[in-house]
Amino acid sequence: MQTELSRKLGVEHAVFGFTPFPAVAAAISRAGGFGVLGAVRYTAPDDLRRDLDWIEAHIGGRPYGLDVVMPAKKVEGVSEADVEAMIPEGHRQFVRDTLAKHGVPELAEGEASGWRITGWMEQVARTQLDVAFDYPIRLLANALGSPPADVVARAHDRRVLVAALAGSARHARKHQEAGIDIVVAQGYEAGGHTGEIASMVLTPEVVEAVDPLPVLAAGGIGTGQQVAAALTLGAQGVWLGSIWLTTTEADLHSPALTGRLLAAGSGDTVRSRALTGKPARQLRTEWTDAWDDPAGPGTLPMPLQGLLVAEAVSRIQKYEVEPLLGTPVGQIVGRMTSERSVQAVFDDLTRGFEQAVDRVNRIAGRSGQS
Amino acid sequence: MQTELSRKLGVEHAVFGFTPFPAVAAAISRAGGFGVLGAVRYTAPDDLRRDLDWIEAHIGGRPYGLDVVMPAKKVEGVSEADVEAMIPEGHRQFVRDTLAKHGVPELAEGEASGWRITGWMEQVARTQLDVAFDYPIRLLANALGSPPADVVARAHDRRVLVAALAGSARHARKHQEAGIDIVVAQGYEAGGHTGEIASMVLTPEVVEAVDPLPVLAAGGIGTGQQVAAALTLGAQGVWLGSIWLTTTEADLHSPALTGRLLAAGSGDTVRSRALTGKPARQLRTEWTDAWDDPAGPGTLPMPLQGLLVAEAVSRIQKYEVEPLLGTPVGQIVGRMTSERSVQAVFDDLTRGFEQAVDRVNRIAGRSGQS
Repeated sequence: MQTELSRKLGVEHAVFGFTPFPAVAAAISRAGGFGVLGAVRYTAPDDLRRDLDWIEAHIGGRPYGLDVVMPAKKVEGVSEADVEAMIPEGHRQFVRDTLAKHGVPELAEGEASGWRITGWMEQVARTQLDVAFDYPIRLLANALGSPPADVVARAHDRRVLVAALAGSARHARKHQEAGIDIVVAQGYEAGGHTGEIASMVLTPEVVEAVDPLPVLAAGGIGTGQQVAAALTLGAQGVWLGSIWLTTTEADLHSPALTGRLLAAGSGDTVRSRALTGKPARQLRTEWTDAWDDPAGPGTLPMPLQGLLVAEAVSRIQKYEVEPLLGTPVGQIVGRMTSERSVQAVFDDLTRGFEQAVDRVNRIAGRSGQS
Repeated sequence: MQTELSRKLGVEHAVFGFTPFPAVAAAISRAGGFGVLGAVRYTAPDDLRRDLDWIEAHIGGRPYGLDVVMPAKKVEGVSEADVEAMIPEGHRQFVRDTLAKHGVPELAEGEASGWRITGWMEQVARTQLDVAFDYPIRLLANALGSPPADVVARAHDRRVLVAALAGSARHARKHQEAGIDIVVAQGYEAGGHTGEIASMVLTPEVVEAVDPLPVLAAGGIGTGQQVAAALTLGAQGVWLGSIWLTTTEADLHSPALTGRLLAAGSGDTVRSRALTGKPARQLRTEWTDAWDDPAGPGTLPMPLQGLLVAEAVSRIQKYEVEPLLGTPVGQIVGRMTSERSVQAVFDDLTRGFEQAVDRVNRIAGRSGQS
């Protein structure tokens, strides 16, 4: 699985793995892929530094990258308290009622919510970057829109490639104009924030729209067959996120959540605004059903919704309240049926890829080649 | 593009083309694919007989099939008038208001609506079958659920293969239990009735679920690259519907509609209940927006919605009222940018397929083979 981009980055397989877990990121790169650590949960620079140190000690000198959430547009002089004040009381009451209905316990006194809006704010992302540029990262990915011009310039000064996620050819062209190096075409079936265009249609459209920029296909990819299909569609690599959630190196801190992921079928996800205010694919739960119910108050726009539900989500996760317990994940969750090591996932990907290439060669009448 | 199934049917390319136009169906088979005529619009048996005669005269002895809409469950003793009586007056008024707002003229006195519920009713489908079995069709496809057991048996007696559309692995297994021969896995991105699982995920799931039955991939396929990707995912062929709508052999009777299709991007469709009461992907228009607007009355369940809007849709189409003018079509509409002959579409498909296979062979390090 070698493309121009994988050769440029010096990796064996054109498989990019996005993960919030340092152990998974390191294992992806050690297995011959390209690990990308999601930084959104790091609010303290020292925590990020500690985990990047860990990666450096365990990645065997292989290349890796970092994924931040950095808006191109600044919102000046707005504090988290200002944003908090914009949340209607009726919505707060709906959160309290829904949690009470399911008997979700309170957090202990002084216990912080695990997820805060702060990771989404520009000053936090910039602090993350100050840390990240102390390390030999090879890729900086931005999960929401194009990164600011000065960040792109700073990355390029250090020979760090910049990637950005796009759900349409129009978004992809905007990224190209912003000077980024790689577009991640994120299809409808992907976990997390997605648009409505499915990978089968989106991948070749984005490839054509930003030619000659390399494109990574994201969404619906968890087997070697799907890797082969995505590369057939013109991508220079694949960007996998969901598949790592049930690897042995992942640390979800919740056996119940791991169990739900292993049990879920491809039809058990929903593209809902419940988590952040923008449509994001996640496990369908009674929590997402409550927010998507026309009889409920509905969701608030980003970033209000994320702030509104942050503590509730922490409580649901901490106490593993199963009917409400979810996580962002793509439709490929139906293929996540056993806990495997990252290396075992790679072994399956490469074997499945070779078999799929054999198959399409037979169909093309090139049977001597398969 | 040869698979076990295409060899069994004696066609050169494993490309199945669904179309309501006899001239397109004949051209697909003449070009080396397998043309499938949609029968839902034929309410008079003689009309179907006339068009099948035309196909026989123009298809050059190539194989072809027929697509009917036949529910497995009978609804006994319910007439169209009974169904009409179940439509609330408020919904009828909403139709009148929406048409009036856009100045849509009335049909002439005695002029029939072009689309009626009758094509969806079992007695009509059975009459269609009585006609069809007089012709040497090789495939009978059912667009909605599994066909009744006696119809499957009747087809098999005549060595006619039976296909059924499925939007999930569970649906596909039900078809298999009903004794059908081919499953069409219809992804989220497809035109017409679709589920929520995208082709990239659905195709391999259905292939695995019904093994060893052959699966055709539908949804998001309009280029040779996409054909190659679908076959890589394990399909024994592809099922294309949208791509033929803008061929020179198609007869939409509406230059304005053809123009809208040629201009639309992949983001200009919507999966809406506006047409039939079940989610069907179609061009997004002010008509679908009105039905999908939370401030409106909302859609009725199938078959009420189809009956409610039948005359309105005929009027919109006849008078080409552009803001309301739509048609079922998949996300691949973004690739339909010029009118081409069916043969030209096939030439592009086969050339693109070969290039995609070359590309994936290079990535797999089999460069001597590309």
